Amino acid sequence: MSQTSFKIIKKDKKSKARAGIISTLHGDIQTPIFVPVGTNSTVKSVNPRDLKEMGAEIILANTYHLHLRPGEDLIKKFGGLSKWMSWQGPTMTDSGGFQVFSLGVGLEHGVGKLLREEEGEAKPRLNKITKEGVTFQSHLDGSKQFLSPEISIDIQEKLGADLIVAFDDLESPKHTYEETKKSLELTEDWLLRSIKAHKRKDQLLYGVTHGGSFQDLRVRSAKFVDKNFNAIALGGAHKNKKNMSQIVEWTIASVSEEKPRHMLGIGEVDDIFELIQRGIDTFDCVIPTRIGRTGFFFASTPVGNIKNRFRFDINKPQFRTDPKPLDANCTCYACQNFSRAYIHHLFRSRELLSYSLISTHNVHFLVNLTKIIRKAILEDKFKTLKKQWLV
Amino acid sequence: MSQTSFKIIKKDKKSKARAGIISTLHGDIQTPIFVPVGTNSTVKSVNPRDLKEMGAEIILANTYHLHLRPGEDLIKKFGGLSKWMSWQGPTMTDSGGFQVFSLGVGLEHGVGKLLREEEGEAKPRLNKITKEGVTFQSHLDGSKQFLSPEISIDIQEKLGADLIVAFDDLESPKHTYEETKKSLELTEDWLLRSIKAHKRKDQLLYGVTHGGSFQDLRVRSAKFVDKNFNAIALGGAHKNKKNMSQIVEWTIASVSEEKPRHMLGIGEVDDIFELIQRGIDTFDCVIPTRIGRTGFFFASTPVGNIKNRFRFDINKPQFRTDPKPLDANCTCYACQNFSRAYIHHLFRSRELLSYSLISTHNVHFLVNLTKIIRKAILEDKFKTLKKQWLV
Repeated sequence: MSQTSFKIIKKDKKSKARAGIISTLHGDIQTPIFVPVGTNSTVKSVNPRDLKEMGAEIILANTYHLHLRPGEDLIKKFGGLSKWMSWQGPTMTDSGGFQVFSLGVGLEHGVGKLLREEEGEAKPRLNKITKEGVTFQSHLDGSKQFLSPEISIDIQEKLGADLIVAFDDLESPKHTYEETKKSLELTEDWLLRSIKAHKRKDQLLYGVTHGGSFQDLRVRSAKFVDKNFNAIALGGAHKNKKNMSQIVEWTIASVSEEKPRHMLGIGEVDDIFELIQRGIDTFDCVIPTRIGRTGFFFASTPVGNIKNRFRFDINKPQFRTDPKPLDANCTCYACQNFSRAYIHHLFRSRELLSYSLISTHNVHFLVNLTKIIRKAILEDKFKTLKKQWLV
Repeated sequence: MSQTSFKIIKKDKKSKARAGIISTLHGDIQTPIFVPVGTNSTVKSVNPRDLKEMGAEIILANTYHLHLRPGEDLIKKFGGLSKWMSWQGPTMTDSGGFQVFSLGVGLEHGVGKLLREEEGEAKPRLNKITKEGVTFQSHLDGSKQFLSPEISIDIQEKLGADLIVAFDDLESPKHTYEETKKSLELTEDWLLRSIKAHKRKDQLLYGVTHGGSFQDLRVRSAKFVDKNFNAIALGGAHKNKKNMSQIVEWTIASVSEEKPRHMLGIGEVDDIFELIQRGIDTFDCVIPTRIGRTGFFFASTPVGNIKNRFRFDINKPQFRTDPKPLDANCTCYACQNFSRAYIHHLFRSRELLSYSLISTHNVHFLVNLTKIIRKAILEDKFKTLKKQWLV
């Protein structure tokens, strides 16, 4: 049994939403919670002190990136990811599968562009998938690399996160039923090999569900993961938001209630409500820092709404003289100290502080959103809160 | 009489060094102290909270830059520079003369390149100097601009800093005696016009001494400024460090002891000791953030020394696995929390956090250096401390 455990402390009466606690050696995680992404073992332009202050409880870093630089052996030598990045709290790593996908089939199909957008120096290369694993070229120096379930788990054990993810193959939303099924079978094989390779008892290993948009494959995958893992990650392709919700419903209906559920790579405000309502406990996304670097900041209801996607562009002339904080309801360092006018000026002047202030605000915003959702669940007010935000 | 005043509380017995207090409406400044530069009303990639924490007591912003963007009227509307940038402490502005110089004669003579290095978007343009003032083109949009003593003072009154600087013409180190003398005469005229234009009694107006490397001109300028101003700024050209010390000695010998003295644009570790020893109270410089953005960090004695200029390049391979903090003796946020190895990794990954961490450290380093020098002066140990650092 893993030393990392999950406990449900409250279930919503009108939906599948629940509040829980994931206990790890590095501390407790109050779910549901948004998981900020620190790709290279840093949440871009947000320092760990600000992350603590805003109430972030867990950070996700990318196995693929850290394997290539600085390497898992160095991070192990520094006592693992949490100490290495001076976060001193729970961490999670992904399997590397998504990044490898975005170099291969994802590139071909024009999907999963995350890697290229995130990395200025990226030169995507095709990869080769065999039953054994995936061969690809590093986006940093073109060197030949190989990832397999055993290698991914070995890297993740050395990185030492509390929550880790089994190695998987990613389907494309453009794949046919047969192609998706073939990919799922490969994933199932790799998941079992991941379990076999995994030795560290202090890490909770998530199995990843796949199956594209095909109900029977999604149900099959959910049951397979539920049978073999103590924690469920939802991965793979979906066509749109409605389709995503449908996939989550199929999956959640086919897994055990008492296991924690993580949705990979999702983080829009409306998604967060829809996912929590359907029983998701945690989700990670680069959205808050990625849009932050281009000047977009989140604003809460009623200023933010579905139509404006809860976001505004600080570069707009209307903010040049605006004395208000980014978000009137926000308690983050940026909102407590700076006007939109000042941050507008910093952005126009390309001052580094601007990226830091908006990114800090945006991460705070999503972490805080999940905290008030958790409070609403505890007080049986989830549906009311959702209605208030998604009018 | 200005509501901003200066008091000497201790004089060093063996040199001209002294410890004092500049009292302003925004708080006291314990001198000698290093003044971090926030060109665009932000110390590049260092937030005001970190500046407070490290003990910074006053920030200098650039009149030229803020005039062009966002404009002094907006900053006035926000309650002045200190509130605008959420610094909530004493501030200083320069006259704009240096930036205008670097667009004109400075560019021609290959000196004063500060503006071009500081601003990615800079397209330097020649300017035209008349008795009335200086015509130049904005480096932002090419628009025609005009600065005069009256306009510089008007801008600085609106910006609302506690310490401001009279408008001056800058000589080039390549100027002949006659050219330097002509420039000095223009400066003297502009200084008197600056005094006449200055109405705000809460601001202390510094006159600027010039005269290149010519002793009689330096002495003449020092006496002129001392006669007409309650605060002395040392500006203009020097040929090298030795020549700079000589110029400071000529100037200090010709001004009243009880007036505060600011050296414009200087901030190397050895300079700081030499200047304080010769009677300088405050000095500003972009060095800590400028070198910070390229990866250079300051280290204290005995690791840092005159030969290595108290600085190291974090990008060097030797730091890849180094568990030590940037500087073993430093109490800044970066040194208390992160290893050189981690910051090396951030720099190699071009992560924004790296610029913030090293810049914060470097500014902290110089502010702290002046604080321990002040303590040494109070304890009659200045020469001992200087010997310890500049072996």
